[in-house]
Amino acid sequence: MTVKKIVGTNITSPKGFKAAGMHCGIKHKKKDLALLVSDVPAAVAGVFTTNAVQAAPLKVTKEVVYNTKKMQAVIVNSGNANACTGKQGLLDAQAMQQLAAERLNIDPSLVGVASTGVIGEIMKLAPIVQGLPKMEPKQDLESAIDFAQAILTTDTVMKNTQYSTEIDGKEVIIAGTAKGSGMIEPNMATMLGFITTDANIESEHLQAALSHITDITFNSITVDGDTSTNDTVLVMANGLAGNESLTPVHPEWSKFTEALHLVAQDLAKAIAKDGEGATKLIEVEVTGAENDVEARKIAKTVVGSPLVKTAVFGCDANWGRIIAAVGYSGAKVNVEAITIQIGGTTMVENGEPIPFSEEKLIQILKQHEVKIDVSVGVGEGHGHAWGCDLTYDYVQINASYRS
Amino acid sequence: MTVKKIVGTNITSPKGFKAAGMHCGIKHKKKDLALLVSDVPAAVAGVFTTNAVQAAPLKVTKEVVYNTKKMQAVIVNSGNANACTGKQGLLDAQAMQQLAAERLNIDPSLVGVASTGVIGEIMKLAPIVQGLPKMEPKQDLESAIDFAQAILTTDTVMKNTQYSTEIDGKEVIIAGTAKGSGMIEPNMATMLGFITTDANIESEHLQAALSHITDITFNSITVDGDTSTNDTVLVMANGLAGNESLTPVHPEWSKFTEALHLVAQDLAKAIAKDGEGATKLIEVEVTGAENDVEARKIAKTVVGSPLVKTAVFGCDANWGRIIAAVGYSGAKVNVEAITIQIGGTTMVENGEPIPFSEEKLIQILKQHEVKIDVSVGVGEGHGHAWGCDLTYDYVQINASYRS
Repeated sequence: MTVKKIVGTNITSPKGFKAAGMHCGIKHKKKDLALLVSDVPAAVAGVFTTNAVQAAPLKVTKEVVYNTKKMQAVIVNSGNANACTGKQGLLDAQAMQQLAAERLNIDPSLVGVASTGVIGEIMKLAPIVQGLPKMEPKQDLESAIDFAQAILTTDTVMKNTQYSTEIDGKEVIIAGTAKGSGMIEPNMATMLGFITTDANIESEHLQAALSHITDITFNSITVDGDTSTNDTVLVMANGLAGNESLTPVHPEWSKFTEALHLVAQDLAKAIAKDGEGATKLIEVEVTGAENDVEARKIAKTVVGSPLVKTAVFGCDANWGRIIAAVGYSGAKVNVEAITIQIGGTTMVENGEPIPFSEEKLIQILKQHEVKIDVSVGVGEGHGHAWGCDLTYDYVQINASYRS
Repeated sequence: MTVKKIVGTNITSPKGFKAAGMHCGIKHKKKDLALLVSDVPAAVAGVFTTNAVQAAPLKVTKEVVYNTKKMQAVIVNSGNANACTGKQGLLDAQAMQQLAAERLNIDPSLVGVASTGVIGEIMKLAPIVQGLPKMEPKQDLESAIDFAQAILTTDTVMKNTQYSTEIDGKEVIIAGTAKGSGMIEPNMATMLGFITTDANIESEHLQAALSHITDITFNSITVDGDTSTNDTVLVMANGLAGNESLTPVHPEWSKFTEALHLVAQDLAKAIAKDGEGATKLIEVEVTGAENDVEARKIAKTVVGSPLVKTAVFGCDANWGRIIAAVGYSGAKVNVEAITIQIGGTTMVENGEPIPFSEEKLIQILKQHEVKIDVSVGVGEGHGHAWGCDLTYDYVQINASYRS
């Protein structure tokens, strides 16, 4: 095993990263303002929502990712998405960038901005102005936890993960933290993800790796099919591990991408599992599709089906809803070759029902993680998607979110 | 007004149609078997699910619609969808066709079959064999109601409508009945629709009219985004009104298509309003899209958004979720020209928030029908979609449907 998981939750584990998080007053009580900063400007890569309506902070952060191509810090608030806030919204996002830069004494063009929360309300800057001077980014675990908590909205738990590997004989760490948990249909969702690493790598190669990995991780989860205006995943690589600069021809390139993949996958699954109101993580694995893209399309359709989601919530081994979702996914399938398994038990083989033990299936569906395998008999395409069950609590949370 | 609505609910109002419905034993208690028959073979048109997985009855009924091109009767059962039941399922659907033909003493090739209910369970034919001899199709209101009730599954109300018009000086009646109410994302949904008319028209023209009208009615509703394996809408036109044969060049063609449109629209809205667990009908009207197809795409995305649906359930004027859905619809939009109204109150103009009275909006959102208007500032495209709110009851119904 050349890539290993590190126990513990620390976005500041990679060398040279500091974090802070606090309650400044955008929300009533919970932490709502966060800062992440690298000792030196870091190579940066970012992926952003595909929603045509994009929140103001994304415009600011895209400038940093695409033009500056380096990032040294990111300021994040929760409680207000600063989306659909017109010209004032853009001015406010720029002000946040400026304020963070002043606080940290760095150039504003090196500062990213991310916001999550209610859409369409003008930001209150006063709490941020008052809060920033009190923030002291540090490298300790407590500060990393403060950051991870301050970016949450309706999430019930923090999402953190970290892996280490060795490149050119130097230890390289990749750590990440993220928030979900509603309006999650990435491409992206109101999900924010922040990944830090001390690897030495140019932005160009970091971006290529992130874009590829995002497709098979963050873009393969769904909570409710809604794509947010604010989704952002940023990776900052500050190079302090001291390895030779990573490129796809570096002999240990795959170690780095594997670690980045695992960080992204852990965060994506954690977001799906903590979907609004969710009690279970659902993983769908599809084989035999025309290609990998089609396989993911089928997997996402199944895991996104409200009827499949409610059936899993109700511990009902209702494979008919699974095969119906496969059928309307729009992907090419061979109906007479479809095989469906729930928790390893075959329910459908070659398109026809197989008798199974209801009692056994109820036990399988009572677990906190439910695996559905689908094979569609067309080709070699293979893919995963992750989601969660649809529960009373999802309705409750979202019928009363804004007020 | 050349087309007028007829009060009352009677699929047997057009001349020469008889119906029956009974409890035969597929379900525990409720009516589950229905027959509709015309005195003479009728011109027929049909639209069917686009799901790649199609239930056995559809194969049988498509033969009648596409090959016989006439239909004299249809046998319908609820409680079992006869979907994903393999070769046995096809034999069973053919047996139902044969049994109905024998009971009515007509040719099997003139008999359509429709089923709705649980997927993946082998049909029990014995209750149908025993029930059919007891069925006496009649033209009275009671028999029409028996039919309308026997096709329901989780529906809470019957869906019926009828219109009359005059063509060539003869009264022509078009009546329809339908069932929803889960797995409703037409193209089509587990929706069954049966429309009868005594108009004189060839199948070819009837099919063209139905296909066009289906796009802007049945295919513009959504309950949960799930597309069923069984959706079927059939129109039978037996010609007994005695008008000259209708074609698009007949001077009164548009009266007929308007009446058919209104029947289809009434049924579609009734299905949306009675979506599983729904408390409200949501109508979204989109203007200013690139074309009508794009407008409907936006309208369906908004009305299908779980976050919009839960907000309407919770009487939360959360237009941010509406604009987010507009943004991820995939249709071309001019973000800076987006206007959004809820119940006639403007919430967003030119992409920016407009102050509004929360109290007024809560009153608007408490109504049983909520209208959302969206304008996207690109072109002249215009379209509607209908759906319903997402409630605790949807989750309850679907977490325990099969058992």
